[in-house]
Amino acid sequence: MIIVMEENAPEEQIVRVVDRLVNLGFDIHRSTGARYTILGAVGSRITDIRELELLDGVNKVVRVSSPYKLAARAFRPEGTQIKIKDVLIGGEEVTLIAGPSVVESREQIETIAAALAKQGVRVLRGSAFRSSNDPYGFQGLGEEGLKLLSETASRHQMLTFSTITDSSQLPLFARYVDIIQIAERNMQNYALLRELAKLDKPLVLRRGTSSTIEDTLLSADYLLRAGNQQLIICERGIKTFETYTNHTLDISAIPVIKKLSHLPVIADPSRGTGRRDKVAPLARAAVAAGADGLLVEVHPDPDQALSDGAQALDLPRFAKLTEQLRIIASAVERKL
Amino acid sequence: MIIVMEENAPEEQIVRVVDRLVNLGFDIHRSTGARYTILGAVGSRITDIRELELLDGVNKVVRVSSPYKLAARAFRPEGTQIKIKDVLIGGEEVTLIAGPSVVESREQIETIAAALAKQGVRVLRGSAFRSSNDPYGFQGLGEEGLKLLSETASRHQMLTFSTITDSSQLPLFARYVDIIQIAERNMQNYALLRELAKLDKPLVLRRGTSSTIEDTLLSADYLLRAGNQQLIICERGIKTFETYTNHTLDISAIPVIKKLSHLPVIADPSRGTGRRDKVAPLARAAVAAGADGLLVEVHPDPDQALSDGAQALDLPRFAKLTEQLRIIASAVERKL
Amino acid sequence: MIIVMEENAPEEQIVRVVDRLVNLGFDIHRSTGARYTILGAVGSRITDIRELELLDGVNKVVRVSSPYKLAARAFRPEGTQIKIKDVLIGGEEVTLIAGPSVVESREQIETIAAALAKQGVRVLRGSAFRSSNDPYGFQGLGEEGLKLLSETASRHQMLTFSTITDSSQLPLFARYVDIIQIAERNMQNYALLRELAKLDKPLVLRRGTSSTIEDTLLSADYLLRAGNQQLIICERGIKTFETYTNHTLDISAIPVIKKLSHLPVIADPSRGTGRRDKVAPLARAAVAAGADGLLVEVHPDPDQALSDGAQALDLPRFAKLTEQLRIIASAVERKL
Amino acid sequence: MIIVMEENAPEEQIVRVVDRLVNLGFDIHRSTGARYTILGAVGSRITDIRELELLDGVNKVVRVSSPYKLAARAFRPEGTQIKIKDVLIGGEEVTLIAGPSVVESREQIETIAAALAKQGVRVLRGSAFRSSNDPYGFQGLGEEGLKLLSETASRHQMLTFSTITDSSQLPLFARYVDIIQIAERNMQNYALLRELAKLDKPLVLRRGTSSTIEDTLLSADYLLRAGNQQLIICERGIKTFETYTNHTLDISAIPVIKKLSHLPVIADPSRGTGRRDKVAPLARAAVAAGADGLLVEVHPDPDQALSDGAQALDLPRFAKLTEQLRIIASAVERKL
Repeated sequence: MIIVMEENAPEEQIVRVVDRLVNLGFDIHRSTGARYTILGAVGSRITDIRELELLDGVNKVVRVSSPYKLAARAFRPEGTQIKIKDVLIGGEEVTLIAGPSVVESREQIETIAAALAKQGVRVLRGSAFRSSNDPYGFQGLGEEGLKLLSETASRHQMLTFSTITDSSQLPLFARYVDIIQIAERNMQNYALLRELAKLDKPLVLRRGTSSTIEDTLLSADYLLRAGNQQLIICERGIKTFETYTNHTLDISAIPVIKKLSHLPVIADPSRGTGRRDKVAPLARAAVAAGADGLLVEVHPDPDQALSDGAQALDLPRFAKLTEQLRIIASAVERKL
Repeated sequence: MIIVMEENAPEEQIVRVVDRLVNLGFDIHRSTGARYTILGAVGSRITDIRELELLDGVNKVVRVSSPYKLAARAFRPEGTQIKIKDVLIGGEEVTLIAGPSVVESREQIETIAAALAKQGVRVLRGSAFRSSNDPYGFQGLGEEGLKLLSETASRHQMLTFSTITDSSQLPLFARYVDIIQIAERNMQNYALLRELAKLDKPLVLRRGTSSTIEDTLLSADYLLRAGNQQLIICERGIKTFETYTNHTLDISAIPVIKKLSHLPVIADPSRGTGRRDKVAPLARAAVAAGADGLLVEVHPDPDQALSDGAQALDLPRFAKLTEQLRIIASAVERKL
Repeated sequence: MIIVMEENAPEEQIVRVVDRLVNLGFDIHRSTGARYTILGAVGSRITDIRELELLDGVNKVVRVSSPYKLAARAFRPEGTQIKIKDVLIGGEEVTLIAGPSVVESREQIETIAAALAKQGVRVLRGSAFRSSNDPYGFQGLGEEGLKLLSETASRHQMLTFSTITDSSQLPLFARYVDIIQIAERNMQNYALLRELAKLDKPLVLRRGTSSTIEDTLLSADYLLRAGNQQLIICERGIKTFETYTNHTLDISAIPVIKKLSHLPVIADPSRGTGRRDKVAPLARAAVAAGADGLLVEVHPDPDQALSDGAQALDLPRFAKLTEQLRIIASAVERKL
Repeated sequence: MIIVMEENAPEEQIVRVVDRLVNLGFDIHRSTGARYTILGAVGSRITDIRELELLDGVNKVVRVSSPYKLAARAFRPEGTQIKIKDVLIGGEEVTLIAGPSVVESREQIETIAAALAKQGVRVLRGSAFRSSNDPYGFQGLGEEGLKLLSETASRHQMLTFSTITDSSQLPLFARYVDIIQIAERNMQNYALLRELAKLDKPLVLRRGTSSTIEDTLLSADYLLRAGNQQLIICERGIKTFETYTNHTLDISAIPVIKKLSHLPVIADPSRGTGRRDKVAPLARAAVAAGADGLLVEVHPDPDQALSDGAQALDLPRFAKLTEQLRIIASAVERKL
């Protein structure tokens, strides 16, 4: 950390700042210039920068080292690859994760899985605990949904992918789910993150809709420090003033996170746009920008879906999309 | 709901839309104009408007009635007042809720409570479960913290106010806390909202940092429908492009929510600005704009606080603020 | 326009609203339901919806027809193509517009133009009036800059492209520039738009950094109504809370505008990201999402550029990018 | 400026950065630590920080001194007061600037001015060049409007206040207007700012709707450096995701700018909310937060206003507001 004092800050203010930093466990290197005194503070304690900025005589406080360590690219310059059975995420191949918003029935999930498997999709998504804004509405099939997902996936040699919404579901997820997704609103739910980090399962951390890239990497760092190394970041759209789309899928976040961090990055064009006819263009854009994977909602009959049909692709449209993605992947030296 | 068809939409498209709406349980009134056909759909089912907009021939879908019913001002035009022991929230008096960010020790909470009681503060805030971004950092005192808060508050004839962070804490909150606050990131955590709605306790619902006013009132509606009527909304700042403050306290949300809803509205200038020297100006602004109460972090020695000292007022500054608030309250025909 | 009255609004309120609408020149169709009265208002006058919403008894006012007419896709469903000499914008080919941020010297612009012409670039960009935040800094070469741009472009059979910053420059632009760009901050400078619409020149309208897609199409409509039909929209990034990039390039705006409007859409990944190493990923994403063209800043030695070197590609990187774009264009049935 | 090199950056990278900085005219102080090398660069040249950050081996570049100098509080710690005839802005008194959105006729402006003068208002606002989004709509009365404004104001011993929209209007504004307002979209129109800075007239600089506080102070700095010292900043609302209000009036910007700068700060609750019934609460909030003045649109019959009636107060509501403001001003040791 570097603390820049105000021009001509009196000696007693400087001394007070030095004392406070030493109390916080930092080593201090002081450099006195003609106009400014600059303090370099070396130490590992996590500090609230605002508190130092409020001290008398302090002009500015700057973090030198990245506030996230284990998530930083420097920690593993070659990049992280996550291997789950025979699926590799973060390698040459772009990973497609597809399936319905919610598991509705054995028939529904089987129809979708069979079609996706033919397209070469290796990871089957499907929620079992639905976040409904209607207290009396459809809440998902719960354990039965996870079980259907798991049985169907194994029939087609696919992995399972589902979203956890509460820590009480942990035992079920440990049993049925290969890749556990953390919803955006839980990105800073540290109590839940602590529990999840203990599981030996790959996790997908969704960027919060009002979280900066740095906030997101700080949450990733939390999970890494707490012990889980199989981590994937998901860009799913941020809240902006534009209202035509529910959120604005931040495509630039993909190359930015790839540069700042060693973690694989996937994108969710279904939730990120909320509109079926925008899913394909944004899916293509994400791969063109360097995404390691995509999360796409697919439904055999979107108009009859019990949840979020508005953002699901039907099977022919999904097939067409995968063809386009194959070409685009080749342009960026990837495969599908 | 009103569905406006495209100019000159063919009859078969109109019929298909009508069929779909009837299947969803709506009664349809059709009005055929020279250029547009307009369908009025009457019914109570919660519908995803996007799905209707995607049907062929549909130009626009408009909700006529407010999407929230029980939270709407029309449901209780005279406004809701919440009485907890002898404290009335939403009445003539502006309610001050004050205390430390986190309960640190018996001495700390006692010093603060004693000082606040002298200023006439009737509700004592203090967290026991801290949301720390450091997996190895201070996590709050847990049950011990709630117990200290409760004992101290009762010694000074104050109510207790604390933030719940996980559903597993429900029994503790039922026992020790008079007013339970729901953190902004849990505003749409419906699983937690459902559990909280069953408690017979006043709740404070914080607006999410990327939630519109309408989103917030929809979450309020969820709690009201699920059974809890003692609800207060808290404006705590939204995420914007401005970075000097962590969030932008949306002062206009106060009169807007007061108009749209019958629920009391309080503001949190401490978290809303994140900077100690901005707390007083924004606290004054909130009361001037019509807030029913304020949430203010206070600490006897903010520089030594274990958490969020940067946004805490010391006791003399808090005393000065209450004087100013008394005058401002009188300008809007309120009392402090 | 549809005006939905409050539930059980008294007859005198309804009559007052009808009177007001008739005074504004609308024909009114009244439909009285069991709970709601709905007024359909037909007419062409542009009206401030807020004023109607403030009338007593009005619940909601909804525009039925799109607020922009000439810019709407329905006005020219086959899409607009703009032909300038032998360059066609909005056709099968994706148009690359490239060049330096600012024309610095005859040598600089010649070097760049020669290299770009070899890559097949047909439109040469370069500013002559620089928007410098330093009153004593480099302001661009003015007329001399436009002249150099024009001479160089014609030597290489290229078109010229430059940004107008003030109406006093109109005669110069009429003389030297083939495609005139309107800066984002002038998107709603109606005085300037009125003057530009009188020129018989293709115009590029940049979306304002705090303008919605609808705002942008309203400005486009203004130009179309004022007489200029050769209009192109440019997505250049919107202001969001993310600070790693100066702006967030809204890739979803590309397919959205293509659907809502018949106008060609280009993207500016250089200004949209402000960082050289993010230009290529976002350029690829824009083409993958369906952009009709790209605006790319190129400089033979970005580190020595007099302006915005941070966002300029050097020539080898630009050559590599065009190769990738060629493949991606083929995936969406376009050519480069 | 401080340049922090990457951990263990090789000597040749450090040397290259030093060379580049020396070429840019900076003196360099190098400090070599165990892990980091830090370069302090002293000099006055305005530099694009991004360009330095892109150099190999650079971790972070930090501006030590504020990027704006003349606008910074340190430049005039006691604060700037602007005296125009016998009106003092930035002193003890809170200045009310009121009047119609647009000057419509002699009768209209006279009625308003007479009523405002009775309330003690000393500055009369009114536009003569209207920014209409309809190329064939009402564009304001032009010179005649400014003349009516000026005659009416002088009859009531008031000052005139109007918004300039194009540099061609400068001679008219020099003649008729006492305080010239720069619209938000022109905040970074440096060509116009340069011209305005030459006039010996107080200027009001409106914060752009996507401009940070720092951006705004940089524009203020531009005007101060270019020669005009009679400058006032106006907060008028920023673009956020909330749609109930057109913009979000950033009340916290008022105390923030008062701290960072010596310039007076006023607020515009009329345009900042766009809704008549929200003007009074936000006007009160702005004064409670420390604003030096307010800009309020007033119309004798808002429903008949030719422009922006939706955000105008009628005369009785304005009178009531001034009473409330008088009390609130006293709470913050100001007068009205």
